[in-house]
Amino acid sequence: MRRFLPILDWAPQYTRQALGNDLLAALIVTIMLIPQSLAYALLAGLPPEVGLYASIAPLLLYAVFGTSRTLAVGPVAVISLMTAAAIAPLAAEGTAEYLGAAVALALLSGLMLTAMGLFRLGVLANFISHPVISGFITASGVLIAAGQVPQLLGLSVRGETLPQIISGIIAHLPQAQPLVLLIGLPVLAFLFWTRRGLKPLLMRLGLGAQVAGALARAAPVLAVVASTLAAWGLALNVPQVGDIPASLPLPRLPPLDPDLWRAILVPAALLSLVGYVETISVAQTLAAKRRQRIDPDQELLALGAANIGAGLSGGFPVTGGFARSVVNFDAGAETPAAGAFTAIGMALAALLLTPLLFHLPKATLAATIIVAVLSLVDLGALRRTFAYSRRDFVALVVTILITLGFGVEAGISAGVLVSLGLHLWRSSQPHMAVLGQVPGTEHFLNTARHNVVTVPEVLAIRIDESLWFPNARFLEDRLLAALADQPGLRHVVLDCSAVNGIDSSALETLEALNHRLCDGGVALHLASLRGPVMDRLARSHFLQSLGGKVFLTTYDAMLGLAPDITAATRAALRCETAKAHAVPHVAPRAAR
Amino acid sequence: MRRFLPILDWAPQYTRQALGNDLLAALIVTIMLIPQSLAYALLAGLPPEVGLYASIAPLLLYAVFGTSRTLAVGPVAVISLMTAAAIAPLAAEGTAEYLGAAVALALLSGLMLTAMGLFRLGVLANFISHPVISGFITASGVLIAAGQVPQLLGLSVRGETLPQIISGIIAHLPQAQPLVLLIGLPVLAFLFWTRRGLKPLLMRLGLGAQVAGALARAAPVLAVVASTLAAWGLALNVPQVGDIPASLPLPRLPPLDPDLWRAILVPAALLSLVGYVETISVAQTLAAKRRQRIDPDQELLALGAANIGAGLSGGFPVTGGFARSVVNFDAGAETPAAGAFTAIGMALAALLLTPLLFHLPKATLAATIIVAVLSLVDLGALRRTFAYSRRDFVALVVTILITLGFGVEAGISAGVLVSLGLHLWRSSQPHMAVLGQVPGTEHFLNTARHNVVTVPEVLAIRIDESLWFPNARFLEDRLLAALADQPGLRHVVLDCSAVNGIDSSALETLEALNHRLCDGGVALHLASLRGPVMDRLARSHFLQSLGGKVFLTTYDAMLGLAPDITAATRAALRCETAKAHAVPHVAPRAAR
Repeated sequence: MRRFLPILDWAPQYTRQALGNDLLAALIVTIMLIPQSLAYALLAGLPPEVGLYASIAPLLLYAVFGTSRTLAVGPVAVISLMTAAAIAPLAAEGTAEYLGAAVALALLSGLMLTAMGLFRLGVLANFISHPVISGFITASGVLIAAGQVPQLLGLSVRGETLPQIISGIIAHLPQAQPLVLLIGLPVLAFLFWTRRGLKPLLMRLGLGAQVAGALARAAPVLAVVASTLAAWGLALNVPQVGDIPASLPLPRLPPLDPDLWRAILVPAALLSLVGYVETISVAQTLAAKRRQRIDPDQELLALGAANIGAGLSGGFPVTGGFARSVVNFDAGAETPAAGAFTAIGMALAALLLTPLLFHLPKATLAATIIVAVLSLVDLGALRRTFAYSRRDFVALVVTILITLGFGVEAGISAGVLVSLGLHLWRSSQPHMAVLGQVPGTEHFLNTARHNVVTVPEVLAIRIDESLWFPNARFLEDRLLAALADQPGLRHVVLDCSAVNGIDSSALETLEALNHRLCDGGVALHLASLRGPVMDRLARSHFLQSLGGKVFLTTYDAMLGLAPDITAATRAALRCETAKAHAVPHVAPRAAR
Repeated sequence: MRRFLPILDWAPQYTRQALGNDLLAALIVTIMLIPQSLAYALLAGLPPEVGLYASIAPLLLYAVFGTSRTLAVGPVAVISLMTAAAIAPLAAEGTAEYLGAAVALALLSGLMLTAMGLFRLGVLANFISHPVISGFITASGVLIAAGQVPQLLGLSVRGETLPQIISGIIAHLPQAQPLVLLIGLPVLAFLFWTRRGLKPLLMRLGLGAQVAGALARAAPVLAVVASTLAAWGLALNVPQVGDIPASLPLPRLPPLDPDLWRAILVPAALLSLVGYVETISVAQTLAAKRRQRIDPDQELLALGAANIGAGLSGGFPVTGGFARSVVNFDAGAETPAAGAFTAIGMALAALLLTPLLFHLPKATLAATIIVAVLSLVDLGALRRTFAYSRRDFVALVVTILITLGFGVEAGISAGVLVSLGLHLWRSSQPHMAVLGQVPGTEHFLNTARHNVVTVPEVLAIRIDESLWFPNARFLEDRLLAALADQPGLRHVVLDCSAVNGIDSSALETLEALNHRLCDGGVALHLASLRGPVMDRLARSHFLQSLGGKVFLTTYDAMLGLAPDITAATRAALRCETAKAHAVPHVAPRAAR
């Protein structure tokens, strides 16, 4: 029972002090969330109240099911963009069908996340690699920011890809409204400045770092109030938010049209995975700071419940947002109750504040979005990834380019396929080392890197990867080539110290190799087998048919197979004076 | 030059003795190939002469480009079935379009194989695992044999899947022709008997084992001659091969219709991969017996040239066949010239023998096919694979069931996807061991398997897999859980002795983990890092930000972090009497 209802862990011990802290955190997060929820609903192409609705029921449900004490669930930029991309092909923006599809997407995504949680499939999210998610979020940030530029210009241009957006802006530029730009640009400049300058300024004015940080985060509210007053007071003719119904969301089912659900199946799966990856990484970062524990499978259930809640109360897909969660944490939230209080705050806003938002210029919300998402763009990842791994760099660049050029669904899918493909490719060509003895020791090292001793009749080879079907033939090719190239070869010793597993394909390859080497008069020996690998091999007939023996170590194998050389290097060990070139039967490096 | 023309390696040193051996082998293979080429053409739904044509140019071209001395290229059963499956949806059997599509398939497959060879993409074939290819060939054998049953009954039923074939036979059973069965059944019984009984009988009659074996392999020719004579002499009214034009194939282009080529793109790729996997495995088996070498990339070029040859001379797709290659090898073929001589034999057959084949009953060819393909069915693989690996068993069974139930293309594709998916799944959940010290030694072993010593403030953990994105989060979850569960924990030592690589995702996970552990007051240490892994980590900032240290071994780490316990067990080493339970600070097993 407790496993599925983490609220039972904290609610019974809820203290007065925790109540105070949670209420303060909820107040700050609510102030931050009001403009964000409106902005992200518009970003998804939805009426602004949908953003408010998505910030009530989901937060209450996460408070019941979530294992993170401080995660702030709600509408976030990337998921809003994915929502727009998923439903734009299905219905025209502003229609009831469009809204219905968005709500159905939230419900389906919630059901998928719940199913993944029940079947403990959180591991699926692992297949989205860091370079892919990082490239995807950077590219989404660029797409979102570019998509808001028309709003700043008073144009109604939408596009799924960067080329579409840019060509749309260029085509419609003559219709730009300078008045809109006069509202948007100052707001944009103000918000950029508050990111850097407001907190230090407030601290110089004598405020504590925490309070100053929280106030700086609330700057968008100031921009909202100021620009709304300006638009109202000066009766500016700019696109405004307009009438928002002052009501709470009513529970209702989204459309259950099978064609619609089939069409949103893949987008819902991608959106669920991306949302989950974001949630879990934020939740774990914050939990570790207080040595708290996150249950990844329970988080699936909690995020699933939150989205089902969104889908049944006219909201759109939600997830755990990074920025608001950090604010919640910094503001001192102690339990998920802070999220529930935020939900109450949002419900009050939906009931009482909406008339005040009538004159809020849409350009202000566009500026809010641009400033928020540009912090998602991480171009440094390109440099860091390039330095560390060329392969991961390729996955990162492919994800960015496909996302920008072909949209979010194509981008994330291509990224996952490319990163898996590149990994499989690499593991099909494992690192292998021909081993030689370090004179006077029991150590065997790579002949290509070290000055070591070998004998022409024994080839000791170490494979630095588990043996499985994509790389089994690689080993075979390598050993059969040695068979053909080294006429004096009598023994092959396969050092398996780095082999963590051998699958059926590799087993059959080893069997074939054993027979082929036997036919060629060469015995195949194994050395340094790990326990679990040995256990498994014992379940097959391979060890009985093996032409050679199984040795504990490569040194033992060499002792048995080439006693001359090992004896000689042992003598060297004793007198500690012998040099490698003085050892008999040593094959010079060039001869191999 | 020599790399691309292996003929230059052997032709200049061609000896009189090799000539004699090659001619004898070619004679035996030709006798075997005549009925097979006719039968496999019928199996692919093509006129019988297409089988003859596919046995001339391809063999000559393989002799020029191939690196195997003994591989016998030509029509084979599984590839013929795949050909039929690929073109049956595109045209009606017996039409010029059907024939044109088969020839185009050969040409496209040849071009693909050549391109793969030039770009050295032979490694792609590695992604078809042994269980998948074994299941695929077994299921194909069953499908082919079932598909020949109507021929034995005088019915014209075709089907792509086992349910289609069986329901077709049942529906048409009333039209069965008993006379056809009277031809087919004795031939079938005779051929089955020759498989087991003829060689021993011939040996008892005083023939050498090699000659007896070769004669037994030629038994189908005897069946062909006898049943043809019977059909002609008794004027039996059974379906017969009929008129075969007595001519050599003329060079000509297959249809170049872009729609056709687009439709056969995927089938051609699958057929090329399956054909290549078969070829390379036969070629390597035979080459190893004589310590010869196969160049896998050159084999792609050679098989590509053979198929281009088939496509330009009215043939259908070919590959290296197992049975004929073994006969060729056993008959003493020394060079690819044996293949060229076989081609000459087949050309003579096409010119001179075709009138004699007019009365050959199709039921005889069906019986030939059934006997040949049932040797492909390997049900023992089910048992062997089940015993060795449940995961590989699933891949095997899925491949068999999907091939039988949905056809060859679906079967091989599903098999590859399932086997890759299962492998990725497994490697996302790597084996991890909490390590403890074997009292009195420097060895650290799995606490779950051995009676070892640990301390509550240090967690030493070994991960038995390279760290990459599908398993990075697994490690993180495990360590963060330890952080929350072990309040006394101060140090985590990650033993990387089995880690052959760390990708960017795993690096970021380690960085995040390091920060999270630091935030929780725990230092992350690394031990037993491999050289290449260490080199790569040095290219990032991870080692600078690491909360703990990098130790040479886990023992060194414990010496530095928990000197009390290590000193105690060292004392134990010295006096060699201490027992594990006498060592101070030992955490009892149940407490962990």
